Amino acid sequence: MTVLLYACYGVDSAAWLTALRNELPEIEIRESLDRGSPSEIDFAFVWKYPPGLLRRLPNLRALFTLGAGVESILADPDLPEDVPLVRMVDPGLAIGMNEFVLMRVLHYHRDMPEHERSQSARQWVRRVPPLPQDRRVGILGLGKLGALCARTLANLGFDVAGWSRTHKSLDGIATFTGAEQLPALLKRSEILVCLLPLTPDTDGIINRETLAQLPRGAFVINVARGQHVVDTDLIEALDSGQIAGATLDAFRVEPLPAEHPFWAHPRITVLPHVAAITQVQTAARTLATNIRSILAGQPANHIVDLTRGY
Amino acid sequence: MTVLLYACYGVDSAAWLTALRNELPEIEIRESLDRGSPSEIDFAFVWKYPPGLLRRLPNLRALFTLGAGVESILADPDLPEDVPLVRMVDPGLAIGMNEFVLMRVLHYHRDMPEHERSQSARQWVRRVPPLPQDRRVGILGLGKLGALCARTLANLGFDVAGWSRTHKSLDGIATFTGAEQLPALLKRSEILVCLLPLTPDTDGIINRETLAQLPRGAFVINVARGQHVVDTDLIEALDSGQIAGATLDAFRVEPLPAEHPFWAHPRITVLPHVAAITQVQTAARTLATNIRSILAGQPANHIVDLTRGY
Repeated sequence: MTVLLYACYGVDSAAWLTALRNELPEIEIRESLDRGSPSEIDFAFVWKYPPGLLRRLPNLRALFTLGAGVESILADPDLPEDVPLVRMVDPGLAIGMNEFVLMRVLHYHRDMPEHERSQSARQWVRRVPPLPQDRRVGILGLGKLGALCARTLANLGFDVAGWSRTHKSLDGIATFTGAEQLPALLKRSEILVCLLPLTPDTDGIINRETLAQLPRGAFVINVARGQHVVDTDLIEALDSGQIAGATLDAFRVEPLPAEHPFWAHPRITVLPHVAAITQVQTAARTLATNIRSILAGQPANHIVDLTRGY
Repeated sequence: MTVLLYACYGVDSAAWLTALRNELPEIEIRESLDRGSPSEIDFAFVWKYPPGLLRRLPNLRALFTLGAGVESILADPDLPEDVPLVRMVDPGLAIGMNEFVLMRVLHYHRDMPEHERSQSARQWVRRVPPLPQDRRVGILGLGKLGALCARTLANLGFDVAGWSRTHKSLDGIATFTGAEQLPALLKRSEILVCLLPLTPDTDGIINRETLAQLPRGAFVINVARGQHVVDTDLIEALDSGQIAGATLDAFRVEPLPAEHPFWAHPRITVLPHVAAITQVQTAARTLATNIRSILAGQPANHIVDLTRGY
């Protein structure tokens, strides 16, 4: 049994190697194709890999990603259709996303941007925030992460609604479904959180038209993909006051180029794609459990539906 | 039955009047002593009031505060010893404090100050935060608010410990008691939250000596009273790097004077005493319930112990 670990950007390969060898001591883990034959590789754990890699692995039984988003792998013309592609659903990643979304929703709910401006001006200005039951938060995307964040915010008392492509039912959370119900979700969202997968339908979903449907002075938190946001439309909405602030963790080009206007915009908080970082320790355990399921003849968990794209 | 409402700073008297008349329609509520006789006043709801007020109320049956802290009322030489003093324990206030503490603990846990500095420099620097189970938070004060914040943080997975004057036992939270165990709590607190009542024992408790006992690079969040902090000691600890950042919501003089060094310190976030603001709507209901208990011959809830001072 042999596993190939292939990650060339954005992950700590040495840490992964240690953690995976620790969790799967019975399996040989190779870091490259230089040793042995590529035909011996049963499983591959990949993140950013060089083009052509998948074509060289004829006997792959499953392909695992080391991060949550799979759109770059789906774009690989060598992606085999008959090999399950398994998405990373790491408990550490979910914890990180939940923390991050909660932190930024609270930051906007509690008027922190205004308080920071008052501090700069040495001005003592008391603002009484509404009770959370009077604060309406909208979550775009009700997958594992979106549903988790929605529940956490609802448990703190926020008036939470969510939107997804197919109907989802969540206790205590109003849900909206499909393109025709998106305006209703937007209309009620004082704080909008994007946790959608990136698909042709969601590409550019945060644009001039949708931003205009939010209540004036709304806040936007994008913790999904940079392609969800039309950059110039967001800047325009911030400059006009339609949007009061935005937290962006993902960008069309990463690292965000030094000349990009997001960096210096006074109402944008730029984060270097850290909202949810796969935690090697908890993720390696999840991967090991999944590998053992497959070896025991059971289907892997979290297989990507290639037709839906997530 | 007559109630006197007396608040001359920091609260919205008109909103209180409306809310209280709504909750207690059977009771006459006066806004001043100009009408009727002061001897008719059975209950007084007070916040900042002029000296001598209490001396003029000979038939008071209970005195209620409109905020959580009672130290200024305890310092009033006219405070009658035989009239119960009732502290505000407002569910809205607890919600606000819980939100605020959670928000700032997450802000420090997720390295937001460093991320903001990176953004200013247009630098893409990814930092992997520890899992919450590896982040140690210390709460000074385990009263209603301290215990609530400790539980909320523990539920999110943080490694939480608390400290109080008398022994408290809280599920899943390590507790430390009394002056001799304070160093042990400080030693383990990467993020320290002060939620203590202000008493002679806790005055100046955040000082050079206690700050030096925190791990290097710790964060301090003071949401209690300005007098808990020795201002110059905190600035010294921030400037030396012993403390990496501080969030201060309360000050020795409020509003914080424009010339105070806290305003412009790059590692201090100044808030204008808004962490927990009594919410008129929920608080008026609590006060009404308490008044009805007393009228039914039952003791009031949340009576201040004059010997302890809270």
